[in-house]
Amino acid sequence: MLRINNRLLSLSSPRILAAVGLISRKEQKSHSTLTLQNLNPLVKEVEYAVRGPIVIRAGEIEKQLKGTHKFPFDRVIRANIGDCHASGNQVPLTYIRQFVAGCTYPELLKSPNFPSDIKEKVERLLSVCGGKSLGSYTESQGIITIRQDIANYIQQRDGYPSDSNNIYLCNGASDGIKTVIKLLMNNNQKKPSGIMIPVPQYPLYSATLSEYGAHPIEYYLDEDNNWALNIDELERSINQSKERCEPRGIVIINPGNPTGQVLSRENIENVLRFAHKHQLFVMADEVYQENVYLSGSKFFSFKKVLMDLGAPFNQMELASFHSASKGWHGECGSRGGYYELINIDKDVKVQINKLISACLCSTAWGQAVMGAIVNPPKEGEPSYELYKQERSAVFNRLKEKADLVSRLFNSVEGVQCNTVMGAMYAFPRIEIPKKAIEHAKSKNMAPDAFYCFQLLEKTGICVVPGSGFKQRPDTYHLRTTILPPIDQMKDMVEKFRTFHMSFLREWK
Amino acid sequence: MLRINNRLLSLSSPRILAAVGLISRKEQKSHSTLTLQNLNPLVKEVEYAVRGPIVIRAGEIEKQLKGTHKFPFDRVIRANIGDCHASGNQVPLTYIRQFVAGCTYPELLKSPNFPSDIKEKVERLLSVCGGKSLGSYTESQGIITIRQDIANYIQQRDGYPSDSNNIYLCNGASDGIKTVIKLLMNNNQKKPSGIMIPVPQYPLYSATLSEYGAHPIEYYLDEDNNWALNIDELERSINQSKERCEPRGIVIINPGNPTGQVLSRENIENVLRFAHKHQLFVMADEVYQENVYLSGSKFFSFKKVLMDLGAPFNQMELASFHSASKGWHGECGSRGGYYELINIDKDVKVQINKLISACLCSTAWGQAVMGAIVNPPKEGEPSYELYKQERSAVFNRLKEKADLVSRLFNSVEGVQCNTVMGAMYAFPRIEIPKKAIEHAKSKNMAPDAFYCFQLLEKTGICVVPGSGFKQRPDTYHLRTTILPPIDQMKDMVEKFRTFHMSFLREWK
Repeated sequence: MLRINNRLLSLSSPRILAAVGLISRKEQKSHSTLTLQNLNPLVKEVEYAVRGPIVIRAGEIEKQLKGTHKFPFDRVIRANIGDCHASGNQVPLTYIRQFVAGCTYPELLKSPNFPSDIKEKVERLLSVCGGKSLGSYTESQGIITIRQDIANYIQQRDGYPSDSNNIYLCNGASDGIKTVIKLLMNNNQKKPSGIMIPVPQYPLYSATLSEYGAHPIEYYLDEDNNWALNIDELERSINQSKERCEPRGIVIINPGNPTGQVLSRENIENVLRFAHKHQLFVMADEVYQENVYLSGSKFFSFKKVLMDLGAPFNQMELASFHSASKGWHGECGSRGGYYELINIDKDVKVQINKLISACLCSTAWGQAVMGAIVNPPKEGEPSYELYKQERSAVFNRLKEKADLVSRLFNSVEGVQCNTVMGAMYAFPRIEIPKKAIEHAKSKNMAPDAFYCFQLLEKTGICVVPGSGFKQRPDTYHLRTTILPPIDQMKDMVEKFRTFHMSFLREWK
Repeated sequence: MLRINNRLLSLSSPRILAAVGLISRKEQKSHSTLTLQNLNPLVKEVEYAVRGPIVIRAGEIEKQLKGTHKFPFDRVIRANIGDCHASGNQVPLTYIRQFVAGCTYPELLKSPNFPSDIKEKVERLLSVCGGKSLGSYTESQGIITIRQDIANYIQQRDGYPSDSNNIYLCNGASDGIKTVIKLLMNNNQKKPSGIMIPVPQYPLYSATLSEYGAHPIEYYLDEDNNWALNIDELERSINQSKERCEPRGIVIINPGNPTGQVLSRENIENVLRFAHKHQLFVMADEVYQENVYLSGSKFFSFKKVLMDLGAPFNQMELASFHSASKGWHGECGSRGGYYELINIDKDVKVQINKLISACLCSTAWGQAVMGAIVNPPKEGEPSYELYKQERSAVFNRLKEKADLVSRLFNSVEGVQCNTVMGAMYAFPRIEIPKKAIEHAKSKNMAPDAFYCFQLLEKTGICVVPGSGFKQRPDTYHLRTTILPPIDQMKDMVEKFRTFHMSFLREWK
């Protein structure tokens, strides 16, 4: 462990990755056409902690555990990523899988055991696919019936019309987010384009802005106010950025990742007024809209609040992202996702449609999964009871763990954890002793990265350090998912408690 | 039709898209945050003819045909895109679909009718998926057993080892191609990065270079030599480009799209020597490697030839792309694909792995389809006979049409068509009368775009003009797929013959 720590420099250095990848610089070829020196410099800037060095190290440990190498634990607890089915506590819904299997191999529909409501849905979808096959390219925006079902889902959610022509299916929300940010990049300006992103944030945003050479306009979420958005802070952030960039858009993640808050309606209203004042394109990352647990709190979509506000706000441009990966479905591997674009200039829309056509279409199987999610069985249909039962079971377990996890963390000395209102994560704040901070810094490591590496090596718990999401200077956090089974979560927090106490003692 | 022609300006103008999209500029909102003026200027430069204005117009006609609007034809023949299952002449292989359905809904494996060999394959794949579900995120490079199967497929193809650590699953080859080109973009240089691309080319390449602000170094394929690569022409092209860019890589499409050639081993050797001399990163687009029809011609992978050449060529960096979308499988909608990277600098590889991790992974269902393709049933296994029979039927039909189509086109006066050796397209050269050329130019249209619009309006045949792929100045072509059923292809060429004769008369 010490040897590994000695070799690790900083979470933000590309060298750490080389180090963790156990790569010897001497092994390098000397006459390569593509080298670290002439590689796209923007690629070098990209960082993505959710699959970063700690996670790479966790994979190594898993391999070593199978061999003779001994660790003070039997298994790695992967609490680093919101990977629902992999957690061992959330199984795929029968309804979704029967639907997708039927679309894949329509011979299955001939079986008398195949539920009739799902059969109808399969036939409806395949009737609009080229050659009645999911194997055909779809329209670039996505299969029309699925876009209609999504529009219907949005309409039922918000009480406002949604147009299937404004719906874009994509390969996971990540793909859609990258596309929309790409549109806003105007390199003709003397200053780079700037996008407001929360801190803490989901690192896809910082990674994408790095890749595009854009300026991240970071605004701090208010930890003392359960990670709400503070409008004074938004003003400070945009005003300070104007020398360095041309602000173009604002990203809001609601429910929050990694922070687990669910924004109040009033907070959303104020954010929209702020965005309107500064002429910002609003990007609402709403992939956790089905993950709201705290009683009394409710998901309000940015679209609904924008419409409720009336003119001139209801003319604002908005992109809202949703995903097949989260919620009660958790079909991450499908890479299903969509975004709704509203109030987009018509000429711009033509350009968007042209741009996405160059990669032809998103995965038809991912589209089918997304379609199943937004149009589930209705009461009275043959598949309804099982669907309802499976869905409730998933949701109730998540709700129970959301409640449990902040209580558990708060019971540990030197740890403070806001209530997990929604999403799938807790983001507790960790007290790290001054000596440990100094030690980490002397090794060129972020203190919470040092902490999380130690946690992994001593307990097998794999979480992501707060520095991977960014955080207020001199505060330290970690992100853990709430996905492991309850017993495992309790066990995890107990192991964490023991580790944390011993860490405090070691470095006091 | 005339009205539409009047409104269409040029295939290369964004305005044509607005025009075809029936968008009135007056409808535009005036206070948008994102407008055509401040949209990412690189996005505006992107062009992608395979789903361009002619194809948009074809979609409109299809809608109008369902209404009262009359056309001199009953249906649109979509020969614009290599969309195998949609063509009505290629059905999904039972084996692939049973495998993917089993992975989707493992309950199916309990049926005594489920083939035992496919059952074993499903269990093998799910055993390495998180929670035994395709719904989990996969490793960013792709599921390990599928990467191993791909490596094995490559090894059997080439007779040289392939390492699963060098295999990257992606969302269709397009996604992989964009990733690799991204790596080569070095904007720190005083000159933009340049990538050599063939002309004619598949327009994903020009679109991607536009999007990245890179310089396309265009080299002409030798039409008189069945679209081979001419080394003198490569030298001319790179030497002329050096003032304007920093050459970084070369793209070769083999078998050719849109041109249908299959490169000889000697031609590939010479291209590799050329790339070595100029220190170019080689990108081999080999997605049609299973589509070789002409007897006597054979697919040689760039990797095999590079290895056969020995030192120093066997140390060259190479990316080879393959896809689930083409071949006998034609599973376009799955967006399955992979690339193999060889001889990559180890530090660069760490950066690539980091970059792709930010979007987590490619679609697991697409990966499963790709896995099925590279590891089909073996002789003696329960699924083998049906698989072999279905696969041969698809291949034999394509082979028959490849042979037929060039003969048919060559029988039309003023049309010359090289032999379709492989891939799925014919790219005949069309004689366009001088008066028609002048007329088209006066309307600011590419002459072959004018021709193809007329062809569509008068016959319902939807093909892509050669200008969408680029071509030698003052030559005109069109690209048609060979996917429609034989009777429809014969009918299509007869309609084309009648149209072409009448076009020649009209404009002589």
